[in-house]
Amino acid sequence: MNDSYLKFVNSPFGGRLARSLGLPKPEVLRRYRADRPEFDGLIAIGAGREPRLFDALASLIASIGMTSVAHESAGLWVPLANRHGLMTGRFEPAEAGAPGKLAALLFDASGIDDSSQFQPLHGFFHDTLRSLGKCGRIVVLGRPPEACASPRQWTAQRALEGLVRSLGKEARRGITANLVYVAHGSESAIDATLRFFLSPRSAYVSGQVVRIAGNRNQAPPPDAPAFDWRQPLAGKRALVTGAARGIGAAIASVLAAEGAHVIGVDIPSARDALDATLRQLNGSALSFDIAAPEAPAQIAAALDELGVDIVVHNAGITKDKTIARMTDAAWQSVLDINLSAQERIDDALLAGGILRDDGRIVAVSSISGIAGNAGQTNYATSKAGVIGRVESMAPQLRARGITINAVAPGFIETQMTAKMPLALREAGRRMNSMSQGGQPVDVAQTIAWLAHPGSAGVTGQIVRVCGQSLIGA
Amino acid sequence: MNDSYLKFVNSPFGGRLARSLGLPKPEVLRRYRADRPEFDGLIAIGAGREPRLFDALASLIASIGMTSVAHESAGLWVPLANRHGLMTGRFEPAEAGAPGKLAALLFDASGIDDSSQFQPLHGFFHDTLRSLGKCGRIVVLGRPPEACASPRQWTAQRALEGLVRSLGKEARRGITANLVYVAHGSESAIDATLRFFLSPRSAYVSGQVVRIAGNRNQAPPPDAPAFDWRQPLAGKRALVTGAARGIGAAIASVLAAEGAHVIGVDIPSARDALDATLRQLNGSALSFDIAAPEAPAQIAAALDELGVDIVVHNAGITKDKTIARMTDAAWQSVLDINLSAQERIDDALLAGGILRDDGRIVAVSSISGIAGNAGQTNYATSKAGVIGRVESMAPQLRARGITINAVAPGFIETQMTAKMPLALREAGRRMNSMSQGGQPVDVAQTIAWLAHPGSAGVTGQIVRVCGQSLIGA
Repeated sequence: MNDSYLKFVNSPFGGRLARSLGLPKPEVLRRYRADRPEFDGLIAIGAGREPRLFDALASLIASIGMTSVAHESAGLWVPLANRHGLMTGRFEPAEAGAPGKLAALLFDASGIDDSSQFQPLHGFFHDTLRSLGKCGRIVVLGRPPEACASPRQWTAQRALEGLVRSLGKEARRGITANLVYVAHGSESAIDATLRFFLSPRSAYVSGQVVRIAGNRNQAPPPDAPAFDWRQPLAGKRALVTGAARGIGAAIASVLAAEGAHVIGVDIPSARDALDATLRQLNGSALSFDIAAPEAPAQIAAALDELGVDIVVHNAGITKDKTIARMTDAAWQSVLDINLSAQERIDDALLAGGILRDDGRIVAVSSISGIAGNAGQTNYATSKAGVIGRVESMAPQLRARGITINAVAPGFIETQMTAKMPLALREAGRRMNSMSQGGQPVDVAQTIAWLAHPGSAGVTGQIVRVCGQSLIGA
Repeated sequence: MNDSYLKFVNSPFGGRLARSLGLPKPEVLRRYRADRPEFDGLIAIGAGREPRLFDALASLIASIGMTSVAHESAGLWVPLANRHGLMTGRFEPAEAGAPGKLAALLFDASGIDDSSQFQPLHGFFHDTLRSLGKCGRIVVLGRPPEACASPRQWTAQRALEGLVRSLGKEARRGITANLVYVAHGSESAIDATLRFFLSPRSAYVSGQVVRIAGNRNQAPPPDAPAFDWRQPLAGKRALVTGAARGIGAAIASVLAAEGAHVIGVDIPSARDALDATLRQLNGSALSFDIAAPEAPAQIAAALDELGVDIVVHNAGITKDKTIARMTDAAWQSVLDINLSAQERIDDALLAGGILRDDGRIVAVSSISGIAGNAGQTNYATSKAGVIGRVESMAPQLRARGITINAVAPGFIETQMTAKMPLALREAGRRMNSMSQGGQPVDVAQTIAWLAHPGSAGVTGQIVRVCGQSLIGA
């Protein structure tokens, strides 16, 4: 659970030594703390031709209380920001030498509809990237390529992925870079997602592409419930499997901090840890083996009266071996617990109407499910299946306003990864844009964003929590 | 261009040294040679419940002249194979110790429609993987998840990706593992793709997922031209940009060997090399700067009379720098040559009807376009845009029977990569399942498969030629 190298190179002596030897120096990532402001500092605004999201962005920036500075590519920003009562100014490239001047870079590429119109992207990031401070944020906004009217526009919007992923790998210093595609008509639904990507909550989420589509009929439902940004899950009931320890306990804790009543599930042998975790959170504990045939009905019965709003499928196991040495039982149990059990539980909760309308399902996949992994044929198959669940069920659940998404953790510092051989562990830790492993809370915060009432437009998606790991498919 | 480590560890002394030091020992990959049989040896057949592709597979295996052995999971294979006049037998797990006994493993997972039905996958690969010889082939066949009738079936089919990618990483020894999704109704269109993945032509293509959908109206066109498997491109005219040297020259050479008349394009300064390359191939040379405004019209005019059947967009440049140090000119020229020029040329060829019905467009993307790369914001943006071009144009071109696909090379041994710093070059070479870089001919053979008249069902796809590089998104 301890990255002693990270601590060492961030000590005065270790820092000097690392510098003199040319060793990598991972940043201590800034993470969300309830006792510190979530948003502060300067945000630089850039834009391509005819930016379509300026109104929504100005309203967002006003609500989070940041101060904007307009790059020359964003000529229309200043008058608009003034209308929104925003503190604003102009970004002067001459001052670009000033390190740490900026907290975030935001580029509205929504109006770009041809590959010949990319000049402003270069101009903006060329001028601003060096002024972005440690643990800064880069967000590029575009239109979902597959919804574009012409191949030229689709191509141009799709090209943004290559830029954003490269910026993430180039920026280092704890900086994240993400791409948000906002569908036409969903401009008013961007706040929860943009807040997440601008916040320290997304410390270990970089190089990701997220789509915000209109919910239900491509527009916010008329009965969209109001919520308090400080307690967005107040009044919600959240089921979390595998909640006794590690990532599951972190998920329970973050959802509770956001106001949810958490119902934690774990196997009977973990009952004491589960009880202790949930007692601290004023939640409820359910001791079930989720893989047992009767478990779905038991869980449904336990939730029946009050229903549930959020289901987090976190429980999972590994039984690593090359397939030639893997027993049939090891193969079968990993697939059953990590994949089939999720299917059975969701079926029971959906058939009984126990998961309420506008509910949220979040499943935990893995980078191994995306890229495959030697020694994990069973685990990778199960986690790739989780991606299939998300992709297949999202269209079906849309009519009820229910979203289903997955997070795919990379190297996270847990008891499990602490047991890995040193060389493998160090490779996992360093082979990403943050040069370090993530924390369970990073996975939990990502899930809390997907579970947010404001994330109604985010469904069918896989979000990696991996510090932009090199590893992929 | 030389991987001296690969040569060294495959020498008698180097091999002993590598063994005693525990160093990786990359296999010398078996590549296609016209003077050696393309297909030989034993192919083991496995299957899940209700395999739907057995007829098509039996017919394929009969046509390539391999001998099949049925694993116990494929009980229906033997009588069927006998009906097809195939040499066939039963795979006996007891003999699994015999190394190199098998040339290929083929699993028909098309009938699996629930995650509870995965046992045969474990049984088959558990029993057979150790018997697969060096440079063996693994192909799993399924149904395209997104076309499945139920979420359970979609999930199960999607899970196969995790398995196949893990098998590729686990198998090593020059073995490739790929997943082919065959749409309902496209069973008769699998031959060109299966031949490619079973052949030494696909030596450096592993961990890939390819879909075979019906062409035009989900069925082979009634006028599908007959072709000779030994000269499938006979009578075809193929345009190859950047053909003077390196990967482009390899593409020209392979397409010519398959029977095409190649028209090579390159910049005027490469005229001598271009002329020499094309003269050898009995092709034609066109000296144009493809980025010049008049180039599309000039190319169209040069091709007008006879038209063209195959267009390979290979020309591309790099101008690497971090974005803060990158000039506007370096940004713009890479995007223009690598991306916008392709758009302009295709527009000219399509608008004039110069690219004929049932034509083929193949564009060269890059792993950098998929994963992003530090120091390559311009290149990665252009290569991600190429992916957008393929995805956006495929649906539009389907009505004319034209396919458009991209190859995304990983680390390929060229003059360009020979100039990389040693540490980066070694990392690029070893961080893949083959522990070595690919050769230009590997990219060329992949393009030849996509350009094949039998590949009508393959469109809108991105195929990596990367030895299953670790790097991805």
